[in-house]
Amino acid sequence: MSGDDATPEAAEADLRPLRTDLRPVVEAVRDADAAAFVAVGDRFDDDLRYLTRFSGPDRPSALVVVPDEPADRAVLCAPALFREQTEREFVASARVSTAELTDDDAEPTDDASAGFHDGVVREVRTEDLGDHAGERAAAVLGDLVSAENGDRTVLTPASVPHDAAVYLERAGNDLASTDAVAAARARKTPAEVDRLRRVQRAAVAGMARAESVLAESEVVEAVDGGPESSRPPPLRWEGEPLTTERLRREVNRVLAARGVRDAGNTVIGAGPSAADLHYVGNDPVRPGETVLLDVSPRGPDGYYGDVTRTFVVDGDGGWERRAYVAVEAAREAALDEVEPGVPAKTVHGEAAAELAAYGFDPNGDEGEAGFTHGTGHGVGVSLHEGPSLSGAGELRPGHVVTVEPGVYDPDVGGVRLEDLVLVTDEGYEILAAYPFGIVPQARE
Amino acid sequence: MSGDDATPEAAEADLRPLRTDLRPVVEAVRDADAAAFVAVGDRFDDDLRYLTRFSGPDRPSALVVVPDEPADRAVLCAPALFREQTEREFVASARVSTAELTDDDAEPTDDASAGFHDGVVREVRTEDLGDHAGERAAAVLGDLVSAENGDRTVLTPASVPHDAAVYLERAGNDLASTDAVAAARARKTPAEVDRLRRVQRAAVAGMARAESVLAESEVVEAVDGGPESSRPPPLRWEGEPLTTERLRREVNRVLAARGVRDAGNTVIGAGPSAADLHYVGNDPVRPGETVLLDVSPRGPDGYYGDVTRTFVVDGDGGWERRAYVAVEAAREAALDEVEPGVPAKTVHGEAAAELAAYGFDPNGDEGEAGFTHGTGHGVGVSLHEGPSLSGAGELRPGHVVTVEPGVYDPDVGGVRLEDLVLVTDEGYEILAAYPFGIVPQARE
Repeated sequence: MSGDDATPEAAEADLRPLRTDLRPVVEAVRDADAAAFVAVGDRFDDDLRYLTRFSGPDRPSALVVVPDEPADRAVLCAPALFREQTEREFVASARVSTAELTDDDAEPTDDASAGFHDGVVREVRTEDLGDHAGERAAAVLGDLVSAENGDRTVLTPASVPHDAAVYLERAGNDLASTDAVAAARARKTPAEVDRLRRVQRAAVAGMARAESVLAESEVVEAVDGGPESSRPPPLRWEGEPLTTERLRREVNRVLAARGVRDAGNTVIGAGPSAADLHYVGNDPVRPGETVLLDVSPRGPDGYYGDVTRTFVVDGDGGWERRAYVAVEAAREAALDEVEPGVPAKTVHGEAAAELAAYGFDPNGDEGEAGFTHGTGHGVGVSLHEGPSLSGAGELRPGHVVTVEPGVYDPDVGGVRLEDLVLVTDEGYEILAAYPFGIVPQARE
Repeated sequence: MSGDDATPEAAEADLRPLRTDLRPVVEAVRDADAAAFVAVGDRFDDDLRYLTRFSGPDRPSALVVVPDEPADRAVLCAPALFREQTEREFVASARVSTAELTDDDAEPTDDASAGFHDGVVREVRTEDLGDHAGERAAAVLGDLVSAENGDRTVLTPASVPHDAAVYLERAGNDLASTDAVAAARARKTPAEVDRLRRVQRAAVAGMARAESVLAESEVVEAVDGGPESSRPPPLRWEGEPLTTERLRREVNRVLAARGVRDAGNTVIGAGPSAADLHYVGNDPVRPGETVLLDVSPRGPDGYYGDVTRTFVVDGDGGWERRAYVAVEAAREAALDEVEPGVPAKTVHGEAAAELAAYGFDPNGDEGEAGFTHGTGHGVGVSLHEGPSLSGAGELRPGHVVTVEPGVYDPDVGGVRLEDLVLVTDEGYEILAAYPFGIVPQARE
């Protein structure tokens, strides 16, 4: 479970260059007969991260994309302190390398656009045109879009900040929202799959650490009549009671050592808290109860991993064993459907039907017993993005989705099994597969 | 540098309950003669995190605060999968505990508001009134605000998502922006200082790890005529060349082991990249060159730490030594100004004047030589928030700011020294102090 990218050098060596093709955005502008596309946001805006590859600060930046002759243009307005970083991440990373230029299919020309992989010329502006990114974007529009158009239509993501929208509107732009970015993000390039695979490898290494800790943990004899006599005493590991927080720190240390961050997403529940879908609190880990670990770290390029396993130490084959068998079957049923052209919701339907066949409510409300969530979601620079396996549309090659059936009982615990699945031309591929089994094994 | 909060139990034991006082928001609504306050955002919206203490998902939630009789009300509209988490984080955490109710100053009444520390009654709604948080917020407004008002003014943060703003406006609300939340966030409660101190302790533990690695690293004899003969070969640590990425992983492992996340903020530059203010790439670490480490992790309650130190292994007392002495003096000059009532920009002014006295340009542009940034910023649930030490306003007790003078030369490197400073009634207190010195020492 380790060693394949243990050093940064090894980890970087096999990664194809990560570049965003801005042509779908340009085409959306042309198709809408609009003047430009504008996105405004800070480092937590995943659309902007995807479009620019700029990982920068918690202060807003603005991207303006304008169809133009002889070349389409993209201008990133960023805070002045970030010029070096934007030049590196937004401009230099989108340039075609010399090695590529000597390739068969690259024909050097005088055109400025030839230097960029998608023909869209990138530029950074950090001039202080005012403090607000929306104001800067409006100024760039005034500069690049010919005034003869009168009122201009500008496409934006629906959630553009309201103050930025007001700046753009006051400058004579009519705003219309576009889902072109979400659509482009849903289908991953080989370079994006490289990143997802790499961060998922780190996620399963973290899982291996947690599973190994559980395998090493010891069951303590219960003392009759104690205050917690209805539940067994916690497991012990390295001489201390095992808790979800201790497990989380073990997982997160492995993630950190592999160069990815836990992103606050290492969800670990034990016993009843395993039925709480997003539990990040501190609970004792007891024998005979489900321990649910959902690890979703984020890699240095912003892509997430997502893996879930469930274990029981010293179980007695009760609810948790039946649940595990049902969820394994639901997982198989779901995966059997994954291939291009299949309606996404078919995958969820098959998982739900299988769980129902095992006697679990396939439509449980959250906080109640049964299957209480969807079977999966897209993963990319957001942990949750398109496509949803409960939503409209068909699966297509390049979609990367979780497959994660689960059943819960708030009084007892929960079982969920989750992998990250790439839709391929032929069917699917699991990114960084990890073994199954309710009884924890030493995996390191 | 370790052991004081090595176990989760010890770490939690001394923390005062973290609760947001919503009364300033209610008062802002009353002062503006408005009907309500609405915030909409996802887990990355720090205003919403502060107001609700809800750490929830990457899907939007909405908070509606309405002045009302007999008690003011706050309703959080969250995705249905998050009911348990919102009840725990938003509602239960704001309730007065039984222990507090038996206290002198708490008078039990029949009033529902008596159960909440600030008298504002919290409620969660996850009914599916539509998919969009803005639509849900509009429905709550329709429900709670009497219709006789006709068009209603609703206060929002300026950066509320545009689509949410459109939903609110279509439902007959006039939006006006408020800075009440930013103002409330700038002054920290003792419970917030507890969190900041705790995460800063983890940050300095990470720093201690990095400094110790540098102290253990070995200088390799240069081979004449090699391809890099103008710069010395990299240091070696544990038998391999030392890189900024190896240092980063060592820091981040310590952060993870202490239950905080690096949040992608472990900036480490070496040589010329130490002059790049936000360098997170992979560079060899060489003797005689500045190694700048800026560690800004985020704790489980969302509060950040922020500490920077600069080291040189086997330096020759050139540029980097002069820069270090100047930055130390600028730091002292800045701290000498920190006390309540002092204009914030005085602190920056004193640091800049001191650097100028040492011959460094106090107004360098980014990417050029000199002091290229401000002396400090507020830190809380955002890494950068109010007050700015270059901005308007006076320092007040409860402000928590970085003090971080630095000088850079893009051809050589950079030196920055940064601490997290609490403004107290008497002056200031450094949260989790860490030693100084350009020559790295073993600190573990």
